[in-house]
Amino acid sequence: MESLRHIDRLAMRSVSPWLHCARTSSTSVPRMPDVDFKPQKYKGPSYEDTLKVRKERLSPALFHFHQQPVLIHQGHKQWVWDSNGKRYLDMIAGIVTVGVGHCHPKLNDAAFEQMKKVWHTTTVFLNPTVQEYAEKLGSKLPGNLKVCYFTNSGGEANDLAIMMARLYTGCYDIVGLRSCYHGMSALLMGLTALGNWRFNLPINSGLHHAMNPDPYRGPWGGKNCRDSPVQVDRQCSCKPNECKAKDEYIKQLEDLVITTLPKNRVAGFIAESIQGAGGATQFPKGYLKEAYKMIRARGGVCIADEVQTGFGRTGEHFWGFEMHDVVPDIVVMAKSIANGFPMGAVVTTPEIAQVMTQAQHFNTYGGNPIACTAASTVLDIIDEEKLQANSLTVGTHLLRRLGQLREEFSVVGDVRGKGLMIGVELVADKETKTPLAAEDVAGIWDNVRDLGVLIGKGGLHGNVLRVKPPMCITKEDADFFVDVLRVALTKHKGNK
Amino acid sequence: MESLRHIDRLAMRSVSPWLHCARTSSTSVPRMPDVDFKPQKYKGPSYEDTLKVRKERLSPALFHFHQQPVLIHQGHKQWVWDSNGKRYLDMIAGIVTVGVGHCHPKLNDAAFEQMKKVWHTTTVFLNPTVQEYAEKLGSKLPGNLKVCYFTNSGGEANDLAIMMARLYTGCYDIVGLRSCYHGMSALLMGLTALGNWRFNLPINSGLHHAMNPDPYRGPWGGKNCRDSPVQVDRQCSCKPNECKAKDEYIKQLEDLVITTLPKNRVAGFIAESIQGAGGATQFPKGYLKEAYKMIRARGGVCIADEVQTGFGRTGEHFWGFEMHDVVPDIVVMAKSIANGFPMGAVVTTPEIAQVMTQAQHFNTYGGNPIACTAASTVLDIIDEEKLQANSLTVGTHLLRRLGQLREEFSVVGDVRGKGLMIGVELVADKETKTPLAAEDVAGIWDNVRDLGVLIGKGGLHGNVLRVKPPMCITKEDADFFVDVLRVALTKHKGNK
Repeated sequence: MESLRHIDRLAMRSVSPWLHCARTSSTSVPRMPDVDFKPQKYKGPSYEDTLKVRKERLSPALFHFHQQPVLIHQGHKQWVWDSNGKRYLDMIAGIVTVGVGHCHPKLNDAAFEQMKKVWHTTTVFLNPTVQEYAEKLGSKLPGNLKVCYFTNSGGEANDLAIMMARLYTGCYDIVGLRSCYHGMSALLMGLTALGNWRFNLPINSGLHHAMNPDPYRGPWGGKNCRDSPVQVDRQCSCKPNECKAKDEYIKQLEDLVITTLPKNRVAGFIAESIQGAGGATQFPKGYLKEAYKMIRARGGVCIADEVQTGFGRTGEHFWGFEMHDVVPDIVVMAKSIANGFPMGAVVTTPEIAQVMTQAQHFNTYGGNPIACTAASTVLDIIDEEKLQANSLTVGTHLLRRLGQLREEFSVVGDVRGKGLMIGVELVADKETKTPLAAEDVAGIWDNVRDLGVLIGKGGLHGNVLRVKPPMCITKEDADFFVDVLRVALTKHKGNK
Repeated sequence: MESLRHIDRLAMRSVSPWLHCARTSSTSVPRMPDVDFKPQKYKGPSYEDTLKVRKERLSPALFHFHQQPVLIHQGHKQWVWDSNGKRYLDMIAGIVTVGVGHCHPKLNDAAFEQMKKVWHTTTVFLNPTVQEYAEKLGSKLPGNLKVCYFTNSGGEANDLAIMMARLYTGCYDIVGLRSCYHGMSALLMGLTALGNWRFNLPINSGLHHAMNPDPYRGPWGGKNCRDSPVQVDRQCSCKPNECKAKDEYIKQLEDLVITTLPKNRVAGFIAESIQGAGGATQFPKGYLKEAYKMIRARGGVCIADEVQTGFGRTGEHFWGFEMHDVVPDIVVMAKSIANGFPMGAVVTTPEIAQVMTQAQHFNTYGGNPIACTAASTVLDIIDEEKLQANSLTVGTHLLRRLGQLREEFSVVGDVRGKGLMIGVELVADKETKTPLAAEDVAGIWDNVRDLGVLIGKGGLHGNVLRVKPPMCITKEDADFFVDVLRVALTKHKGNK
């Protein structure tokens, strides 16, 4: 109850932001940028009842952010309001999903128009929306990546991508990376290599994981290895286009390949372009390119899991794999694809797609008119509002400012990412990289929330702050967040 | 091109229904019931371009109904219009999905209201909609079935249900039935026992299939065995509550259990209450009850796949399993749950749900505010418009009238189902039950479409007409469909 009252007090504070002190010193309360939008008054069930019913009626599998999770009532662009009218800057976007901002009016209009016409037909009939979208999406992809299979989630799409790789190659073994997250189906649970996410069940055979090529926490990598405005704070002697850390991690991959796979045979390799749940881990420059080469030399196909990194978020490129200078054989998408409307996609070449004719396959809702209309409008908005360029500009600015916090605070071990796909790793000791204790991470995280910013938390050790906002945030928003994080880190330091 | 011109002629005909002859003899064109709704004019890409782009840009896995699939442009209640303005009575509802009718105004209003507030939050935050819906859905279920996990499809839900059964029991073996369809994930492809739907890949171990207890096509079953207004046309000496066919199929199940499972151990049993893709196959009365007993005696849990049979469609009951007088341990739902909005659900007991706390689990879009608002409104509409009662009244009427066609036509081998979950099995020979040749089935099916009715086709041999309309159809609609089917069957007979 104490904490609920605390929320109420915060709510009262937030509705009068002009009362805040505008100083940005490291202890004052940073001033939230204004917004010209008035949310509806919340008229739903009370916070207490909501939590009570959730406990009784929803799966205990579901975890929530913060001991007292925010009850999100309404969203507008990069802002959300809770049931008390308190406003937050949304820097996690429903786990990297609300790419173009909450309730974008153009998106709403397009979806409503479609929903007045028809919601659902299935692909056993024709409807123009799915073809229109497939063509538009294909135009965003390089090479011969032009055949789409639409699903309802990234998990469904990854599951299908693995099946395609196996059917196409006639091989069964799939290589992934440790700390990757690819979904929660029975198959994908074996591919997702994060212990917290794995239930004690026999997993699908043929799934292998190479050492995570993590220049921060892994044995190799330093201040020249990452494609990011902020480098690992460790010396290294790499030169441009000559990354020794990459060479070492590739050796590890090769060791896996030559010891555990049938000779010169493999179905495929899958990787996120920047790890998501794994904590925004980036690979050394050139790693994916050599990995692809090695896998292809053995007849395997390369799958890019773009569920988090797709659709302009990484700034410099529209797809995360482009920063690695590779062209995958299969690309998997979801999350930002339709701004929160349930949708996923597998896009591949006509040759690989052809394997799917060996039997019948179906997805009831896949490629439905609302999803395709929403996804098509999302592409338009990204273009019209230059959200990819904004991700680059604001993201680079934000990364650099967060990088400064690493200089200021001993608990900030690493800052990494590209565009608006960012991780801040908290440690107890910069030398040993011991993860900061869970309660300390939670304290900082809760404080950031109390000060009006929603961010995520993840990584193998649960000590990485995840920062992946709607792509429409401004520099002012980014600065506000950095100010807030500084206050939270200062408070944490003071408590020690 | 000829067939496209054909569609145009039909379209012209359909916009002037009053010109049709109102006779209902077996050769005249039946008159479509009127509707007080004017669709928008279609302004999308041409039919030819749509097919061309589909071929180039969508997965060749996707099959379509009819060689010249209908391009559905708009829907209203039980009606859809194609790109030429031709109207169809929709008797398949996007594969049993558009339960309360296309673009229901109350549903649209509720969805739009929610979409103006917030589309997507994920369950790491609170939003009132998911709790409200979970509570409402729970009130529709018997026993202790009250803990919900929401997904984006029936496939995701079945995949999860199997995982829960395995975790709860500590066993791995799952028993299903031949001809069942449970989804297309890597795991579920092994559980779906229809050869056309299985790709040549090693499947998840521990999946077993018992003989399909099909009173029509199986070795046992006759005119007293089915819970349907239309019985199998085969003699049998069963008495009320004493079904010998059931006993025989149960013996087959027991044979599987005692020969292939670890002694007295099994994770679970899964069955649809009436088979969907398998062709509306119904089990003998009492089969599921004894199957549940046998599985539970060995410590297994019983899963009801209600993806097609849930939400009032079977008429007498809200859930298909109720007609079998059983209470499952886990219920899986999808399709009609949100009238076409991508959604699935696993509902189980608190005890079984508890296993999900053994690790973290997550579904990005699962339980999102739009899906929950839509699903909640669907429940309201089913109640307010008494669609379950309508399914019973109109469905029973339709089944009886279709049953008469079996008397009139030698190709109608079986008519079965309950409420508005109906199958019409076409055969070349009523004695041998040889399936009617594919081209003959297609001819009848195409003709039904040309006359203005959309139905499905399925079953293990592809010779079952599937009739599963929105639950708001009227007796007049049902009669129109029967008249249409009679014309198509008569035409087929004449062509022989």
